[in-house]
Amino acid sequence: MNIAILGAGQLGQMLALAGIPLGIRARFLDPQPEAPGSMVGPQRVADYSDHAALDQLAQECSLATFDFENVPVDAASYLEQKIPVYPSPQALAHSQDRLREKTLFRTLGIPTAPFQPVDSLAELKAAVSRIGLPAILKTRRFGYDGKGQVWLRKAADCGAAWHELGGQDLILEGVVTFRRELSLIAVRGRNGDQSFYPLAENQHHAGILRLSRPADSHPALQTQAERYGRLLLDRLDYVGVLALELFDCEDGLVANEFAPRVHNSGHWTIEGAVTSQFENHLRAIADLPLGDTHLREQCAMRNCIGTLPDRDAVLAIPGAHFHDYGKSPRPGRKLGHVTLTAPDASSLAARLEMLDQLLVDS
Amino acid sequence: MNIAILGAGQLGQMLALAGIPLGIRARFLDPQPEAPGSMVGPQRVADYSDHAALDQLAQECSLATFDFENVPVDAASYLEQKIPVYPSPQALAHSQDRLREKTLFRTLGIPTAPFQPVDSLAELKAAVSRIGLPAILKTRRFGYDGKGQVWLRKAADCGAAWHELGGQDLILEGVVTFRRELSLIAVRGRNGDQSFYPLAENQHHAGILRLSRPADSHPALQTQAERYGRLLLDRLDYVGVLALELFDCEDGLVANEFAPRVHNSGHWTIEGAVTSQFENHLRAIADLPLGDTHLREQCAMRNCIGTLPDRDAVLAIPGAHFHDYGKSPRPGRKLGHVTLTAPDASSLAARLEMLDQLLVDS
Repeated sequence: MNIAILGAGQLGQMLALAGIPLGIRARFLDPQPEAPGSMVGPQRVADYSDHAALDQLAQECSLATFDFENVPVDAASYLEQKIPVYPSPQALAHSQDRLREKTLFRTLGIPTAPFQPVDSLAELKAAVSRIGLPAILKTRRFGYDGKGQVWLRKAADCGAAWHELGGQDLILEGVVTFRRELSLIAVRGRNGDQSFYPLAENQHHAGILRLSRPADSHPALQTQAERYGRLLLDRLDYVGVLALELFDCEDGLVANEFAPRVHNSGHWTIEGAVTSQFENHLRAIADLPLGDTHLREQCAMRNCIGTLPDRDAVLAIPGAHFHDYGKSPRPGRKLGHVTLTAPDASSLAARLEMLDQLLVDS
Repeated sequence: MNIAILGAGQLGQMLALAGIPLGIRARFLDPQPEAPGSMVGPQRVADYSDHAALDQLAQECSLATFDFENVPVDAASYLEQKIPVYPSPQALAHSQDRLREKTLFRTLGIPTAPFQPVDSLAELKAAVSRIGLPAILKTRRFGYDGKGQVWLRKAADCGAAWHELGGQDLILEGVVTFRRELSLIAVRGRNGDQSFYPLAENQHHAGILRLSRPADSHPALQTQAERYGRLLLDRLDYVGVLALELFDCEDGLVANEFAPRVHNSGHWTIEGAVTSQFENHLRAIADLPLGDTHLREQCAMRNCIGTLPDRDAVLAIPGAHFHDYGKSPRPGRKLGHVTLTAPDASSLAARLEMLDQLLVDS
């Protein structure tokens, strides 16, 4: 069985790796030549909106998916006229627009930070006076890893923020006071079956995910997160893996955003869970039974940003699992990750400390 | 880093899959077009002894290994003049000749069944009267999965056995009475570091491995097996993974044979051990630190022989990990395997029973 993957980054690569043992072969479309996925499946180098390329994929593959949420909805919709696309272009569209996304959360009764669309400096000032400060002005589309965002700390910041982002569709969001950032990796099959991984706790640095690990949290928090996850999956008639980013606040969970794809905060599932998020995404879209999402051991995942650490030194740490995406180094770029597994919490802490000394993010 | 793999069967495929996250890319040589390895790395279709093909591999790769033990020693030696080959062609040569192999065991003080080379019917009869019956007449070379072997149960069987195998280099081996068949998956790095997986217990059917799982055994047995493993690894100045097949007998362990490669009885290490045998083979030959060989959970591996079971039904079993090699079905052919993991022995037993009902070997 061949599946088409729009986007051949590291997520596509890891999807393709998970597919081989299942008898599922990936075929990629990505405008970047020699993208990471191309090591595991043939890559067609073309724009996502190239109809000839999409036509060929549709001929070779029985269904399609994508590895990042900024694939043009038009491309996914065009492909959907020929072969099934999971998750649906509609889910993709929701995630691409912060206003639609937050409105959907609100409609479903999932708490969010206060927000308001902003189309002029006057509207920005009005929104600030309604929502309060600090607040964050964000582009509604194509933001990732903290890009396309400006913080407003005082009323006088409005002008500069408007100067930087004005002219695009914008949204002002209130700032939520939270104890920690969490994410829920959820999966829904074509038959509606659903499964959830244990909540992950995430630490960011300069807007980029740095550390992710199964969260030490009360079962009630997991239940609350899964309730929000179910609402979202069912409303979108979602198929595949979805990541729901949440803030853990005094009054409960507050949704930040969702990604309609496998997610960086679920990479620890490769070694840490019975079934990885990558395999479960494939199982879901290929209409196979979903796999067990339980934790197998203590684990934590650390991104390698900008530079890769010394491979020998990392592999000398017991329980270290190295993941080199094969990308050329560039500051702020995710080049790989290391997952540490350990039989107990204290060994994991010791191993994390060893790893920290080897990693220099840039 | 590119490595050359002579042989692109399922073992080569699983080596290549383990290599991608480590930044190691496989390039295959195999005379069979579209072999399983070719899904994960480019395959050159040519004979192993094709010097032009070997020359090209040597240009593209920094070292070489192989995925089956019947690669011609000449090909490995030719390649070794250009790039390092691990395990060495010398280790390969020992494993290709049952007489050399058994003699090596004896030299190292590792117990074996009684054996004697046989070059004529008269020698066969003499060997039978010395070794006793039952005994097995085997070709010294190119036997696998029970092929090239004839059982002798009474003196009168000599003629028929000679008729079937005579003309090749032969060896007569006494039959060992054993409680069970075990194997030790061992790994040795380029710096001499060694590591061993827990002994595996193996069940064969019609000469083909059917079930393999970490053995429930006394620590003293593991110690004895590792002592034999160390003797063998050191004598051969071995680099990579080696599988030592052993009989568990009343008086202790008796060596049967060794395979100078990753081994079917170590497939459960992919999900069941901290580091898989495939990753550890790559770590060893690439001069990286060896990975932890401890068991992570209860597990068992079942081969799919001749036909693949229904994928949906297998994946509905909790803790089932499906491995489809992408080969066309043929009776007696290993097409894939399923590894079951479980948090405890009783769930594993229940899962194995479910799996057994889905598998029909042919």
